[in-house]
Amino acid sequence: MKFSETFIPTLREEPAHAEVISHILLLRAGFIRQLGSGLFTWLPLGLRVLKKIEQVIREELIRYGCQEMLMPFVQPSELWKQSQRWETMGMELLRLQDRHENDYCLSPTHEEVVTDLFRDNFMSYRQLPCNLFHFSTKFRDEIRPRFGVLRSREFIMKDGYSFHMDDKSLDVTYQEMYDAYSAILTRFDVNFRVVEADPGVIGDGESLEFHVIAGSGEDTLAYSKHSNYAANIESAEALPLGKRATPKTPLQKVPTPNVRTIEDLTKFLNLPIERTVKTLIVHGQESLVALILRGDHELNLVKAAKIKEVSQPVTFASEEVISAELGCSVGSLGPIQLKIPFYVDRSAAMVSDFSFGANEEGKHFIGANWDRDVECENVVDLRMVGEGDPAVDGSGPLAIQRGIEVGHIFKLGTKYTRSMEATVLDREGNSIYPTMGCYGIGVTRMAAAVVEQCHSEEGIDWPIEIAPMQVHLVGLFAKSNSKVKDTVDRLYHALCDAGIEVLYDDREERPGVKFADADLIGIPHRIVVGERSLNQNTVEYRFRQAEIENIPLDEIVMKILNFLNKK
Amino acid sequence: MKFSETFIPTLREEPAHAEVISHILLLRAGFIRQLGSGLFTWLPLGLRVLKKIEQVIREELIRYGCQEMLMPFVQPSELWKQSQRWETMGMELLRLQDRHENDYCLSPTHEEVVTDLFRDNFMSYRQLPCNLFHFSTKFRDEIRPRFGVLRSREFIMKDGYSFHMDDKSLDVTYQEMYDAYSAILTRFDVNFRVVEADPGVIGDGESLEFHVIAGSGEDTLAYSKHSNYAANIESAEALPLGKRATPKTPLQKVPTPNVRTIEDLTKFLNLPIERTVKTLIVHGQESLVALILRGDHELNLVKAAKIKEVSQPVTFASEEVISAELGCSVGSLGPIQLKIPFYVDRSAAMVSDFSFGANEEGKHFIGANWDRDVECENVVDLRMVGEGDPAVDGSGPLAIQRGIEVGHIFKLGTKYTRSMEATVLDREGNSIYPTMGCYGIGVTRMAAAVVEQCHSEEGIDWPIEIAPMQVHLVGLFAKSNSKVKDTVDRLYHALCDAGIEVLYDDREERPGVKFADADLIGIPHRIVVGERSLNQNTVEYRFRQAEIENIPLDEIVMKILNFLNKK
Repeated sequence: MKFSETFIPTLREEPAHAEVISHILLLRAGFIRQLGSGLFTWLPLGLRVLKKIEQVIREELIRYGCQEMLMPFVQPSELWKQSQRWETMGMELLRLQDRHENDYCLSPTHEEVVTDLFRDNFMSYRQLPCNLFHFSTKFRDEIRPRFGVLRSREFIMKDGYSFHMDDKSLDVTYQEMYDAYSAILTRFDVNFRVVEADPGVIGDGESLEFHVIAGSGEDTLAYSKHSNYAANIESAEALPLGKRATPKTPLQKVPTPNVRTIEDLTKFLNLPIERTVKTLIVHGQESLVALILRGDHELNLVKAAKIKEVSQPVTFASEEVISAELGCSVGSLGPIQLKIPFYVDRSAAMVSDFSFGANEEGKHFIGANWDRDVECENVVDLRMVGEGDPAVDGSGPLAIQRGIEVGHIFKLGTKYTRSMEATVLDREGNSIYPTMGCYGIGVTRMAAAVVEQCHSEEGIDWPIEIAPMQVHLVGLFAKSNSKVKDTVDRLYHALCDAGIEVLYDDREERPGVKFADADLIGIPHRIVVGERSLNQNTVEYRFRQAEIENIPLDEIVMKILNFLNKK
Repeated sequence: MKFSETFIPTLREEPAHAEVISHILLLRAGFIRQLGSGLFTWLPLGLRVLKKIEQVIREELIRYGCQEMLMPFVQPSELWKQSQRWETMGMELLRLQDRHENDYCLSPTHEEVVTDLFRDNFMSYRQLPCNLFHFSTKFRDEIRPRFGVLRSREFIMKDGYSFHMDDKSLDVTYQEMYDAYSAILTRFDVNFRVVEADPGVIGDGESLEFHVIAGSGEDTLAYSKHSNYAANIESAEALPLGKRATPKTPLQKVPTPNVRTIEDLTKFLNLPIERTVKTLIVHGQESLVALILRGDHELNLVKAAKIKEVSQPVTFASEEVISAELGCSVGSLGPIQLKIPFYVDRSAAMVSDFSFGANEEGKHFIGANWDRDVECENVVDLRMVGEGDPAVDGSGPLAIQRGIEVGHIFKLGTKYTRSMEATVLDREGNSIYPTMGCYGIGVTRMAAAVVEQCHSEEGIDWPIEIAPMQVHLVGLFAKSNSKVKDTVDRLYHALCDAGIEVLYDDREERPGVKFADADLIGIPHRIVVGERSLNQNTVEYRFRQAEIENIPLDEIVMKILNFLNKK
């Protein structure tokens, strides 16, 4: 492919409105252009990356007998009403009407459609298990689309769905999809982690997220340095810190004028923050509910949402509501003589001789102890884990990293087969609801996530399996030097004939322009043909961020072929 | 690919609501399933056909330097307002709003988006010509979707757009796209015709349609048996038939009680129909307008629409309006003493001594002659051509066939670059509006059109380049005969190892079921391994609809390889 004949609109300047590095570099290197809010065109180089991603995913799934098909993007509301998601999906589900005023939506996911296909075409246990997938355009009407193709509205995703007679069969496929997704990310040559996740609106069973590690990631991951344990911080279980010591001091109510925050309190009393607890008030099903954490700990909303008494979604009570219902301000709350039910975090339950608000303006207790001074009945896991906390599997301290979720596998159970009445006959002739798994991996998002991890100051640094082309071939001053011109032309044809994908920069541009574009675009193998190296019968060769080497002209094609065949 | 492990839900019965053979067979052979009105899922075999179609199209376009990219499906209304099509596109353009109540549409075509991309990224004549294409999902909100995937609402299409400094450059690319489309259809091995077409709502320039010939086609094509001339019947120019003879009879008004139609008139007067004319009344810009054709000729609405005085779209006047304005009923109209302007078809202008209504109830003229009895000023081409009419290029008589439009190439001119202010600088530094071409070919529609042409009573008969697989391998009674089982298993692996795509029917089904499914699915090379032929060390082999041959077992792989390599 000749550069002069390809639409690669590279930009020297940093584009306005691009916040994250993948957005900036994909724009600057001429891979994407924006059409509208959350809507992107993939230019020739960008589309090549998407096709590579798709092909790797396809190959790894086919190994496990997954079958590719293609389901529609525009979907009738009836199916979504049957699964009850027409109501529960919220504003991200873009609803529309056709000319006959029938309701449709633009698909953000395909559980309903695949379950409908399944119930019409699968009758018997003999047809199961089965695992169907497709690559398709999806739409999520994000309230504020941002970060370029990392969080666009229209995007491409591979989503797959499996159907099983029993949990054992689902377990096998779930493990296979775990293996397939791990193999895919390994082939993409990126640093990734698999973490336990909250299944959210999709299903109610087990689920795992696949994250590409990147400092700019929207998600925070906690993992053990000494085992395979890893979880999205929202789902990471927190163990109690320390053991409760025997009480040493008596309970005392002390005046604390102007103390409003935990920081104020620790300063005023000269107490370590680990010997304070804070009382957070959220709305509950019947009354307000208090959540008590150690002063230095952060509430995890996903965990709070799991308390039945707490209203969904979790909402903090306003200052007005608190002072009206509890008779004091937010900064003076505490568990003694609290008029509402309270839940104590596991680590908050381990403190002794501690301090908190007295539910009276300007007063706090000191020297408080659980059980002696106040009952400690509802102990639950409420807090966000932090760096250095013990991993739940006992393997040692947790580390924290940021990641970009690119894949997600779920055990859905019978949620959709039941609500949509999809049954098959088992061996004994009884009608049963098959259990389901679902497996998603973002195609457009993957391209951006890889760039977030793999880039330098100069541009993108594509891993070989995902790069738009394999070789970037540059001729220097070829117009004025016929030896360079002939050599680089011949080399281009030799590489093409060997089945290697080459972007040949045949433009009449200065070397600086060509190098800057090559750096931006980030094709992994780079060959530069110039007068100086040609005089030694060599070319300059560089692989990704490695040092430049001088390779004999007659060996370069074989060197690259050997590299590619080894992969 | 093993049949037992693939989702191929074949049906014995004819499905309800399927009217055309492609819809029936694609459903019965397990290639598609319907999700909703005009919405279809492509099952594994169906998707394989689509991918083959895409790949052939891609390969033929890349030869001409076309560049593949991918533009969004959901498109902001602003661009469509700039081109003025937001208003003119009618109800087929599905409009929707996002959560912020901004207007969008589901793309039926991409002129606006590609022109927007162009104006932001192309600045200079040095970047032209350029020819960009993509395969993308489209949506057309058909009022009554029907004929399965032949006329669905959501469909896949390849659409391409070229930009040029001048008409000469557009002409070159237009010819290249003509050649590419011809090469694509030739590789699909279907009988097709290229016809002149009416460009309709897309552009105002030249345009050609590519039709797959099929009796069930929605379009009627007229072509010369002795030259390359061919046109959609709506656009086929009609030459005058015959020459006007000198008048022989005097004009007479005669009573014609109960004569209401041309047939009544020819019977009552015992006149050949070629010596009558009929007067059709349509609404005009200022008054009604009469269109006069020979009694045996049919009005062509596309031609009528080209008369400036006629209102758009062409609408016939009702009986009530006619009798109120013209004072007589429809069956008694004629050009003498007609109070409104009239246009005479070229062939109607050639008749002499002819008959028509006297604009009086129950009266007709006979022996009428143009110029002598009534002026014949506005002679235009108004009629539909018919079988045997002279071709406009003078090459002889026309023949008529039905076809399915699968491709369309247009010269758009500067319609979009002007309305959307897309300019580039020419060699002298002047800003100019580039001229455009656009080129569409239906992917999902192609699959159906091929089935309409290529099928037998038993099922589909796929041409080799478009078939879901190359070989259908069947073992007979393999479960009870280990020699058959071993042989067919070995043959399957030998074929796969040779890089041949095989659907291996490994099911424990009766031969009748396997043959019926093979006939339905229509994979072109079929190999049957059974006890009887194995005893002669042969297998049964059939290519498409040819006779069954007995081929030595050790030659069959090579025979198929040779066939595929020759293609």
